[in-house]
Amino acid sequence: MSLTFENVTLGQRVLFGYGRAARNLSAEVDRLRARRVMVIASSAGAAIADRVTADLPVVLRHGDVRPHVPVERAEAARAAAAECGADLLVCVGGGSATGLAKAVALTTRLPIVAVPTTYAGSEATNVWGLTDASRKTTGVDDAVLPVTVVYDSELTLSLPVDLSVATGLNAVAHCVDSMWAPRTNPVNQAFAMEGLRAVADGLRRVVRGPDDIDGRDATLYGCYLAGVAFASAGSGLHHKICHVLGGAYDLPHAQTHATVLPYVLELNAPGAPGAARRIADALGGAAPVAGLNALREELGAPRALADHGLRREDVPEAARLVMPYVPADNPVPVGVEEITGLLTRAWAGEPARDGGPA
Amino acid sequence: MSLTFENVTLGQRVLFGYGRAARNLSAEVDRLRARRVMVIASSAGAAIADRVTADLPVVLRHGDVRPHVPVERAEAARAAAAECGADLLVCVGGGSATGLAKAVALTTRLPIVAVPTTYAGSEATNVWGLTDASRKTTGVDDAVLPVTVVYDSELTLSLPVDLSVATGLNAVAHCVDSMWAPRTNPVNQAFAMEGLRAVADGLRRVVRGPDDIDGRDATLYGCYLAGVAFASAGSGLHHKICHVLGGAYDLPHAQTHATVLPYVLELNAPGAPGAARRIADALGGAAPVAGLNALREELGAPRALADHGLRREDVPEAARLVMPYVPADNPVPVGVEEITGLLTRAWAGEPARDGGPA
Repeated sequence: MSLTFENVTLGQRVLFGYGRAARNLSAEVDRLRARRVMVIASSAGAAIADRVTADLPVVLRHGDVRPHVPVERAEAARAAAAECGADLLVCVGGGSATGLAKAVALTTRLPIVAVPTTYAGSEATNVWGLTDASRKTTGVDDAVLPVTVVYDSELTLSLPVDLSVATGLNAVAHCVDSMWAPRTNPVNQAFAMEGLRAVADGLRRVVRGPDDIDGRDATLYGCYLAGVAFASAGSGLHHKICHVLGGAYDLPHAQTHATVLPYVLELNAPGAPGAARRIADALGGAAPVAGLNALREELGAPRALADHGLRREDVPEAARLVMPYVPADNPVPVGVEEITGLLTRAWAGEPARDGGPA
Repeated sequence: MSLTFENVTLGQRVLFGYGRAARNLSAEVDRLRARRVMVIASSAGAAIADRVTADLPVVLRHGDVRPHVPVERAEAARAAAAECGADLLVCVGGGSATGLAKAVALTTRLPIVAVPTTYAGSEATNVWGLTDASRKTTGVDDAVLPVTVVYDSELTLSLPVDLSVATGLNAVAHCVDSMWAPRTNPVNQAFAMEGLRAVADGLRRVVRGPDDIDGRDATLYGCYLAGVAFASAGSGLHHKICHVLGGAYDLPHAQTHATVLPYVLELNAPGAPGAARRIADALGGAAPVAGLNALREELGAPRALADHGLRREDVPEAARLVMPYVPADNPVPVGVEEITGLLTRAWAGEPARDGGPA
């Protein structure tokens, strides 16, 4: 049985260092010879953005950042970029700020330098998303991939533990879902498993001590690898489900990922024994779902979609909306009953287990 | 102690599959919309090149391929590319064919699609090399990085076992030297160790059965990762030494790398205990040099530079030539005595051992 795969590696520069965001960002803006920087940061991220962009030639601070990138907000930001004559986009913040920068880059072709302050991982991908009339559209375009990412775990110290856990588990989901995503291959699997080890180790330290720099470093580093793996492998069943839930019911992105993952792992692991073994190894568990449950227990992870805005009566519609997105090569066959069962269990927060759903 | 690093990932597409070179190459030429292909392949590689390029719009077959890319041959190839109006370079062969394609791309900015038939790994790097008046010059330019690499281990079946071993050990050297190269970081170290495991496993299979497809696949895959790690981490002490020897004494590239590596590992391991432990683990040995020796023993690796054209009396001059290239941040301090000792031992093929040279 010979090894057959296609892999696309995205070119990107990463500058990683605790307490170095301002100087690394400034050096990078110089290297890119940018003279008119548009900074995208939510009002919640304004203090951090002030600090790390103080030395830059900023022509506009854009603060209208919303989750899931509503299309009218994207249009407004594009107009603002054109009006101020920006030659570089710098986004400081989580997935929403990065997402808005990508939406601007998609039409303006301006380069992005990303300074993530959460564990979203979107900065390592060429995937963009826009939400219109409660439906989320995503696409792939190399122009939205940040040319450089400046990682500084000091910027994540203010991220509350519960949000650290939710967004960190989002990265765990990137790693796990990469193992059976449409373009899964040995290269992105190696990234995914390296990332999973780092995030699991890092999150455990962060929960024990939110200011643990090694823990913050490991989590941020692992989340970067998770983003790289995800960009290369594409969206598996887990991401398809979460994408539909996020777009249709306005559920919080990270918490949705954190909650849904065990049920996808429960469903898919019996059909993907090699991936299941590697996931279990990386999580330090005897079996994959048991390993993930142990990690989630230790982290106090979100448990039920009911706690995050999904209503019991939404489940049948949600399952129907998911169906067109189920990947053809998912390791186990999936029909509307399986998705309904998965969403019902995730809604209630029923414990997942190894061996597949009952 | 916080994690601080810079990493540049090079964007590249890889199509990997046994027996698929012709169809993958043809699809890739279509995807790139190329209409005038210049094929670079040595006369030794002509049969393979005929086979895999049969469906392409070839305007020129260029066969004047020499080791170390003599600058006058590069000039001739550049002139030929201009004359035939090529819009794409396709190189089929080992490091010398890839090297010539890179020399052409360096000045013409033509894109390259590489079809490696050896384990050189140069197709995964943005490093070019030229030799003029017995001195080798190297440089870095993203324009010489092949946009796509088509890997097909069927093309390596005709590679004799001894050359497979020598070029495979060249890849092992990329992996090992990456652990202390100037830009070493967690990302390229992960690639290096994944590559080292794959190459070591693959080469053992190839030596037991040269037609073992899994062995050929693993070796080729590992050599790709080795090239990626090397491109990112840069040249450590080992590569600096081999680069000087290759340029000044016209030694065979792969055999030189295969022979010199144990002595660099012997010298550096005591100063880089973390790297030494990971190298030992990846090689399946208790200690790094012992692990490398066991692998070399099993593979019947080249042993002495004396067997490959270096004369005993060249050693003092060679050591002086190497000195300006010794990396400032090598894990152990290195003076002309250390290099002279290392080269003398490598010339004679004296066994290297853990604990550093006596």
